[in-house]
Amino acid sequence: MNELDTTQAEQAAMRRAIVLAGNGPHYGVNPQVGCVVLDAEGTTIAEGWHRGAGTAHAEVDALSQLTPEQAQGSTFVVTLEPCNHTGRTGPCAQALIEAGVGRVVYAATDPGHASSGGAQRLRDAGIKVVGGLLEDEVEELLEEWMLAARLHRPHVTVKWASSFDGRAAATDGTSQWISGPQSRERVHVQRSAADAIVVGTGTVLADNPSLTARTTSGDLHDHQPIPVIIGKRQIPGDAQIHQHPLEPLVIGHNDLHAALSEMFDQGIRTVYVEGGPTLASAFIAQGLADRLYIFQAPVLLGGDKLALGDLGVSTLSERIDLEVSSVENLGDDILITAKPIRKGA
Amino acid sequence: MNELDTTQAEQAAMRRAIVLAGNGPHYGVNPQVGCVVLDAEGTTIAEGWHRGAGTAHAEVDALSQLTPEQAQGSTFVVTLEPCNHTGRTGPCAQALIEAGVGRVVYAATDPGHASSGGAQRLRDAGIKVVGGLLEDEVEELLEEWMLAARLHRPHVTVKWASSFDGRAAATDGTSQWISGPQSRERVHVQRSAADAIVVGTGTVLADNPSLTARTTSGDLHDHQPIPVIIGKRQIPGDAQIHQHPLEPLVIGHNDLHAALSEMFDQGIRTVYVEGGPTLASAFIAQGLADRLYIFQAPVLLGGDKLALGDLGVSTLSERIDLEVSSVENLGDDILITAKPIRKGA
Repeated sequence: MNELDTTQAEQAAMRRAIVLAGNGPHYGVNPQVGCVVLDAEGTTIAEGWHRGAGTAHAEVDALSQLTPEQAQGSTFVVTLEPCNHTGRTGPCAQALIEAGVGRVVYAATDPGHASSGGAQRLRDAGIKVVGGLLEDEVEELLEEWMLAARLHRPHVTVKWASSFDGRAAATDGTSQWISGPQSRERVHVQRSAADAIVVGTGTVLADNPSLTARTTSGDLHDHQPIPVIIGKRQIPGDAQIHQHPLEPLVIGHNDLHAALSEMFDQGIRTVYVEGGPTLASAFIAQGLADRLYIFQAPVLLGGDKLALGDLGVSTLSERIDLEVSSVENLGDDILITAKPIRKGA
Repeated sequence: MNELDTTQAEQAAMRRAIVLAGNGPHYGVNPQVGCVVLDAEGTTIAEGWHRGAGTAHAEVDALSQLTPEQAQGSTFVVTLEPCNHTGRTGPCAQALIEAGVGRVVYAATDPGHASSGGAQRLRDAGIKVVGGLLEDEVEELLEEWMLAARLHRPHVTVKWASSFDGRAAATDGTSQWISGPQSRERVHVQRSAADAIVVGTGTVLADNPSLTARTTSGDLHDHQPIPVIIGKRQIPGDAQIHQHPLEPLVIGHNDLHAALSEMFDQGIRTVYVEGGPTLASAFIAQGLADRLYIFQAPVLLGGDKLALGDLGVSTLSERIDLEVSSVENLGDDILITAKPIRKGA
């Protein structure tokens, strides 16, 4: 929050800019950003948002709607610090300077190493700059992208489905349809929201999944996650995964830190880890799980086919504490959304 | 429901009788029963309820408030079929006949072999009898007692606490305080509501529990469950369980059907199975769990210390389906209340 240094019109404009940001895609290398331009009277004269990599940034989108006279001396209210980086588009900070903008109010600071420094560049050009207005709201909106930008690895969601007693399958391995139709529908929505879906070679060999995000009628969701396969085992040429609309990314080793680096370098910012118990346990044990979706079906199975295996917890004080954000009923199932609490955090 | 054969006054009286029934203790060999007496105009002239074994039954409690003239020709509205059994008190059916009651309306049929037949005895004496009014409500109120009367074994609640991944302890066995203070308080309330609390000898040897029902300040609840210990191993003479206000019932074998019969013969109608994984799994696997309380703490542990072990489920079609009646938040924990669905039911 930085309300003291901003006007009411700017605060209202920032709320609007956050809504506009949400119009953009919440996947890919670029963040969701919204922008509102005010004139000297505090009246909105343009709105913009970013529509995904390769398209105009929010500030440039808004600027394109203004005459040079309107832009001159105007106030740009934008959810993220204007970038200072020439990628597929030029740096926004420079565009605002050239347009003669009078004032820039932004919410969150750009954590990207290459793209940051925009605020300083604007100040150096004599533009008044105020940062931090509604910063918490924007940090929440961009939680996954911010984490990826700061850690230089994708944000990781680990999902599993189990019985109420923590089993993923019966003793003989049968596991189809433990969870109900509403849970399965939700899983496909969650897949569609991720840049990539990650499984181990064991799951590919055992279940031969398609790894697409589908509607209940079987149609593909508009956005498909890139299938990523981790492990050393060979995948058969006729595996269903080869029918996926996107080329699978095969990572032929089990080093998860390196695997996430490779995914980040490929532009992947969010991953959805879906299978199976060994891979899920490894992400959690190595502190690489940022969000958990735990689907539990109202069933008891007993036996040794556990949804999670060893987590490296040998005594209770080493337990992995979770912060639960919601417990939902999905038909007869429950869905727990939680976050591992970082030790020392 | 049997509303067609009853008056509005009788229906209202039955709702009141159900409330009165709830005044009595919900443990012990006798059920909770309420009674309302109406005169010829449908006006309430007495109310009664049963206060526990050895005290007057609800009908006799109500009758004691009436003059012989009032009782003559009156209508008794009672939640359970009047008993036909001479125990510590005489049969209610006979008392109503002797009082010259004109009509009896009851909700649920008495399932007890020795005590049933009251309705027929009343009819044989020329009294008008209508059964089944609000029967479902009373069956629900008396669910545990009814099950015990029908199956000649106590109603069994199995409780366990686990992490979200189904573990009861860390790999080294440490497990204290996995669940939070609100869960522990609830467990003591649940203990207090049961006739008996059942553990295996393994739990006594490992944890040395007191098996009392206590308030958060450490005081004993008014009603204490009888501690029941199942298993062949010897319990040390200085075990905490010997400090329990009630004499422990030691069952020196592992035959659960026989153990429940013994408990039933001792007057136990509800048991709360609390420990540990082997015993809980055995009750569930043998179809002897009528209600489950599953406490889950927002923690992951991994490893092999499971809250439930083998349940005899070798393939998914043999799974134990559950009917969930509630999912509650208890502080950071969740409590699932569920019932195993009987196959073929």
